[in-house]
Amino acid sequence: MLSISGMKLKSLGRLIGYSIPMILFCTWKSAQAGDPNGALTFSHSLEGLNISGNFVWILMTAFLILFMQAGFVLLGGLVSSKNMLSYMTHCFMATTAGAFIFWLFGFALMFGGSELGPGLDKGNPFIGYSGFMLLGETYDVKTVLLFIFMAVVATFIGSIIAGAVAERIKFPAYLLACFLVYTFIYSFYGHWIWGEGWLAKLPFGVGVKDFAGSGVVHASGGICAFMGAWALGPRIGRFNVDGSANALPGHNIAYVILGTIILAFGWLAYDAGSTLAISDLRSSIIASNTFLAGVSGAVIVILYLYIKTKKANVAEACNGALAGFVAISGPCAYVAPWSAVIIGLIGGLLMCGTTWLVEHKFKVDDPLGAISVHATNGLWGLLAVGIFADGSYGKVSGLITGSGQQFLAQFIAFLTVIVWAGGLGFAIFFGLKHTIGIRVSRTEELDGLDVNIHGIKCYPPEGKYLEDIDDIIRKHIQLGELVSR
Amino acid sequence: MLSISGMKLKSLGRLIGYSIPMILFCTWKSAQAGDPNGALTFSHSLEGLNISGNFVWILMTAFLILFMQAGFVLLGGLVSSKNMLSYMTHCFMATTAGAFIFWLFGFALMFGGSELGPGLDKGNPFIGYSGFMLLGETYDVKTVLLFIFMAVVATFIGSIIAGAVAERIKFPAYLLACFLVYTFIYSFYGHWIWGEGWLAKLPFGVGVKDFAGSGVVHASGGICAFMGAWALGPRIGRFNVDGSANALPGHNIAYVILGTIILAFGWLAYDAGSTLAISDLRSSIIASNTFLAGVSGAVIVILYLYIKTKKANVAEACNGALAGFVAISGPCAYVAPWSAVIIGLIGGLLMCGTTWLVEHKFKVDDPLGAISVHATNGLWGLLAVGIFADGSYGKVSGLITGSGQQFLAQFIAFLTVIVWAGGLGFAIFFGLKHTIGIRVSRTEELDGLDVNIHGIKCYPPEGKYLEDIDDIIRKHIQLGELVSR
Amino acid sequence: MLSISGMKLKSLGRLIGYSIPMILFCTWKSAQAGDPNGALTFSHSLEGLNISGNFVWILMTAFLILFMQAGFVLLGGLVSSKNMLSYMTHCFMATTAGAFIFWLFGFALMFGGSELGPGLDKGNPFIGYSGFMLLGETYDVKTVLLFIFMAVVATFIGSIIAGAVAERIKFPAYLLACFLVYTFIYSFYGHWIWGEGWLAKLPFGVGVKDFAGSGVVHASGGICAFMGAWALGPRIGRFNVDGSANALPGHNIAYVILGTIILAFGWLAYDAGSTLAISDLRSSIIASNTFLAGVSGAVIVILYLYIKTKKANVAEACNGALAGFVAISGPCAYVAPWSAVIIGLIGGLLMCGTTWLVEHKFKVDDPLGAISVHATNGLWGLLAVGIFADGSYGKVSGLITGSGQQFLAQFIAFLTVIVWAGGLGFAIFFGLKHTIGIRVSRTEELDGLDVNIHGIKCYPPEGKYLEDIDDIIRKHIQLGELVSR
Repeated sequence: MLSISGMKLKSLGRLIGYSIPMILFCTWKSAQAGDPNGALTFSHSLEGLNISGNFVWILMTAFLILFMQAGFVLLGGLVSSKNMLSYMTHCFMATTAGAFIFWLFGFALMFGGSELGPGLDKGNPFIGYSGFMLLGETYDVKTVLLFIFMAVVATFIGSIIAGAVAERIKFPAYLLACFLVYTFIYSFYGHWIWGEGWLAKLPFGVGVKDFAGSGVVHASGGICAFMGAWALGPRIGRFNVDGSANALPGHNIAYVILGTIILAFGWLAYDAGSTLAISDLRSSIIASNTFLAGVSGAVIVILYLYIKTKKANVAEACNGALAGFVAISGPCAYVAPWSAVIIGLIGGLLMCGTTWLVEHKFKVDDPLGAISVHATNGLWGLLAVGIFADGSYGKVSGLITGSGQQFLAQFIAFLTVIVWAGGLGFAIFFGLKHTIGIRVSRTEELDGLDVNIHGIKCYPPEGKYLEDIDDIIRKHIQLGELVSR
Repeated sequence: MLSISGMKLKSLGRLIGYSIPMILFCTWKSAQAGDPNGALTFSHSLEGLNISGNFVWILMTAFLILFMQAGFVLLGGLVSSKNMLSYMTHCFMATTAGAFIFWLFGFALMFGGSELGPGLDKGNPFIGYSGFMLLGETYDVKTVLLFIFMAVVATFIGSIIAGAVAERIKFPAYLLACFLVYTFIYSFYGHWIWGEGWLAKLPFGVGVKDFAGSGVVHASGGICAFMGAWALGPRIGRFNVDGSANALPGHNIAYVILGTIILAFGWLAYDAGSTLAISDLRSSIIASNTFLAGVSGAVIVILYLYIKTKKANVAEACNGALAGFVAISGPCAYVAPWSAVIIGLIGGLLMCGTTWLVEHKFKVDDPLGAISVHATNGLWGLLAVGIFADGSYGKVSGLITGSGQQFLAQFIAFLTVIVWAGGLGFAIFFGLKHTIGIRVSRTEELDGLDVNIHGIKCYPPEGKYLEDIDDIIRKHIQLGELVSR
Repeated sequence: MLSISGMKLKSLGRLIGYSIPMILFCTWKSAQAGDPNGALTFSHSLEGLNISGNFVWILMTAFLILFMQAGFVLLGGLVSSKNMLSYMTHCFMATTAGAFIFWLFGFALMFGGSELGPGLDKGNPFIGYSGFMLLGETYDVKTVLLFIFMAVVATFIGSIIAGAVAERIKFPAYLLACFLVYTFIYSFYGHWIWGEGWLAKLPFGVGVKDFAGSGVVHASGGICAFMGAWALGPRIGRFNVDGSANALPGHNIAYVILGTIILAFGWLAYDAGSTLAISDLRSSIIASNTFLAGVSGAVIVILYLYIKTKKANVAEACNGALAGFVAISGPCAYVAPWSAVIIGLIGGLLMCGTTWLVEHKFKVDDPLGAISVHATNGLWGLLAVGIFADGSYGKVSGLITGSGQQFLAQFIAFLTVIVWAGGLGFAIFFGLKHTIGIRVSRTEELDGLDVNIHGIKCYPPEGKYLEDIDDIIRKHIQLGELVSR
């Protein structure tokens, strides 16, 4: 049936093929490709199979890391329902537009010159500049593998900031600020540590180590979050004239607990997957350390607040778990389980302390506690590497082994992120504040950002209102005004 | 202690064993089994280890694909709360009953004769007929591995349809329609492309290629969804007599965003896992392409609607992401990342255009946008293989390489799904409409399907109503009428 | 720039290092470590790569098992919204504090003496006692791998119990009861079967087999759940004086469906991952069996109730799916797919029967159906191994092969868990009842546990109440009393 007119169809096909203007596309598609189908990278050998295993491991963990954004959006249970869509949209844009610009240039800035894959050859200790849009030699299975893992990680910065600036930031201002933070803070600081930049090559210890981003992701993101919240000022009603604070309780704590569990799920994968190699069996200890630190952060916070207030504050315990996860991200590979427990316990208490400090001393309004979770514990995680690393992995030896070398390297990374993310973050948010403006109008804030910016409520009206609609519909039907079936 | 009466117990055991009627079971359990424990399939060799790796990869991605149903049910945030349980139950039945009938016969129809595993030997280019209930030779680790992967994929068809027929279909009609669609549309069309049927063996290019189901799953499901929505007619209140449409906004947009992230999570795994082999390192590019297409679809839609309406419509952006994912499902393995971005951008715009067309020209009511997401973009994905495939993988070369052969094959698959799914889908839904009836009564629709069909509300009454109950309970307690502790 | 003062900084670093008191830590960190970085466990050989693959498999499935807690918390849709936070906090504590005590001593009790990894050498057939806090030789990649898998599994017991005692238990009583159940029931019974204890070494068949915890996790947890619910008595309003029962419908059935899908997702991984070895290709059949049993349980329950009540009760169907999953956990590896379907079908019906029995005969109030899902089907799963095992895997042969040996072993495990978990569970819950008290006051119960115990509502008031707040804020702004920006 089909082969009858096969010859004619084939000619037609050829015609269609050649008639498409090829010039545009050919300039895009570089001739000097890497290994786009893996035929050169894979071989039927032990080494080839090892590489295959790495692909499975890195891809699966990348998928789970992407899923962590589901956790981030659910933390929006802590904002008012009238601003839920606004917060979620911020995270959604951080994931989508964030990944898009990471493809455009973020990956090239961060990993250019790192030599971590074909095509990533141009860059210097301060910034990279190859791998744009995965063209040319970077169209390679190994380079793209690194890309997908790092692309999903890169989406976190925007979500961390979203938590601190929630309920009062202008949508374009959020997008622009995140764009600048991505480009000038995250890409640079990330390049310095993960892209074989100058911090990775410090002559102390084995250079700065930040296994899964206590510094690169959380400290830098959290510090920017602080600058954003500071520049914006507190939400209306958050503080009274006498300086005392009002608690704004959010609208759905179930979301918060669910989001925390999702984040825990992804975090174990994120940290363990950061080995990027299945032959690195340390992964089991990394996963256990991560779990134990999160668990310890949660337990100490709920215990501390139960003793202090006689209430089992599960929402704060969730932040305690996240604090533990953030703190262990950097040191997870270098420490023993007992150290992970201590790091998590301290992380939980640091979170409580910072929350108090931010609220009562700095008078900065941070709806989701992004500062106390990410900034403080990201910084703590950077230092914890230098304290608790026991020398059993990657020759990273902290203070407990009697050597202060690594601690010095970590301390330099600690100061660097404060200066770089703090300074530029201040410039970005206060710069935007005094130019395009970053805060919505009073009316918009009181009415909620969802209807004003997104044109719809997160929970379109139900109950009485819907019944009214039903009544109207019923009446219309009686009047024969509406099309029915 | 236990060995004292061991001998007596052993005799007792033997007695129990033999006294069970064995005849029934022995007829079920075929003697000619495949390799049910893997002892023959696995060997302590490179090849054996490679196979082990494939099992890990395929199983893990299958689990994540199953989880995509959580995303589908959450898209129900776009329906009214009074019909939420109805929509979710449809997806739930698509997953459970769908998998059950896939075990009974769907797998046998689709993969019989494909020779993709022991026992899948009987079939022809039009339909398969071996592998029923995984009995006989198909009780084999390799065949069952294919089964579990394909069983979770098969659950999607019903969920796609559920989105278009929501809020007004009879429960038995939904079940029966899906049963017929599964059996006569999905199993056949799937067999033709994935089961080594006639489309896979077309003499153009390398035969039809649909890597992860743009055509097999989404186009066929989406076209049936269109037929269902058309046959049902619009929900009461959706269109006015002058033909203008009313937006029915749903009840929980947070669910929609969460569901989209879950679907993204699973989609990356679905596409990458469709390599079905860890030695195929293209998986990293497949995952990246999938992510980039989804991201591009989301970004273009939110941008387009922001320019057009000055509102950042995140619910539509979610559909934009899904449109990108659907469009890239087919070509994900054959194209370069820059093509994935273009496919996603076009997918997002096609989604917007189709939504307008379906609503304003066809006057068909599609509550979740299943038609514009799945039908249009499924079809677009089939064609995109023939346009953007760059020849770097599986010798699939699209128009951009200057060859129109593959495009012809894809175009034939494109026409085939329109004719087959369109024709049979029309027959199924309009046939049922004029026999058993497919639409609930006006009263049921206005009251909501949940209380009428499922006997309970999705969100059992709270607030005032619950307080009333509390009052009643308190009063009862005072009267001593109720059992307390 | 950095190397200028390098020497001075190095000296400073050394100073900091030595000045930290090392004595405390050195006593913690045992010199006789196992293989903490995997250098001894991994080798560039087939065997090494096989081990690497096992790490990927076990870790990934462990992450998915952890995620099952998201499913457990969402089942809280079946409780009243005023007690949602209470239920979720119970699950949250089961996960966090549960993992913490598993690290402290649970792992040592359960797996000490099992020789399943370095350092797990001390123990006897009744209890283990090595591996505390992963110190000493257990600081080993292989032992810690077992730890993380078993730690996430161990968190289930508390969540199972939480479902039966919801809406009326004191928070400290819940914690203490779970602590005792973990320590004296779960650790012991688990040791006997999974830790190479006396049940695993019974001289019948190949000793008791419980592949993924029908008995160890679900039967023991479910029986304790029964004791808890019995000791607590029914919720106010659950039963009338004439003994008839009132249905308390919960507050969010969407959560229940979503939770069930999440549990399904994790369950497939849990059962398949319990092979703990990638060379064991039976994993594909295990995953399929698990899926088919859950699917069958759901289908039979919705069908049964549809015939009986003319309503498609999806909430009960969710419990039907869970019943199937529980029942298949034990036998999943030993049976053929057709048996899995039968096990699931029977499991669903047993769930319905037990629900009726518990409610109408025992007059025990079990808000989430934990008893009918976990206790009954856990017991059924233990026996099903002895009935349906077809001898194709691990030499486990049930009644259908004509041998009663294995059935005897399973029957002894069945009796043991009833006696051990039943007896000790009774002692724990009734003991606590008559000492510290386990039930909240009548006022607390009527007001809801959330505000009383957790100091906040799960869904902080919106609508009218929030509008009041807005009004107050607006008024305050007019009066100039509030800080604005």
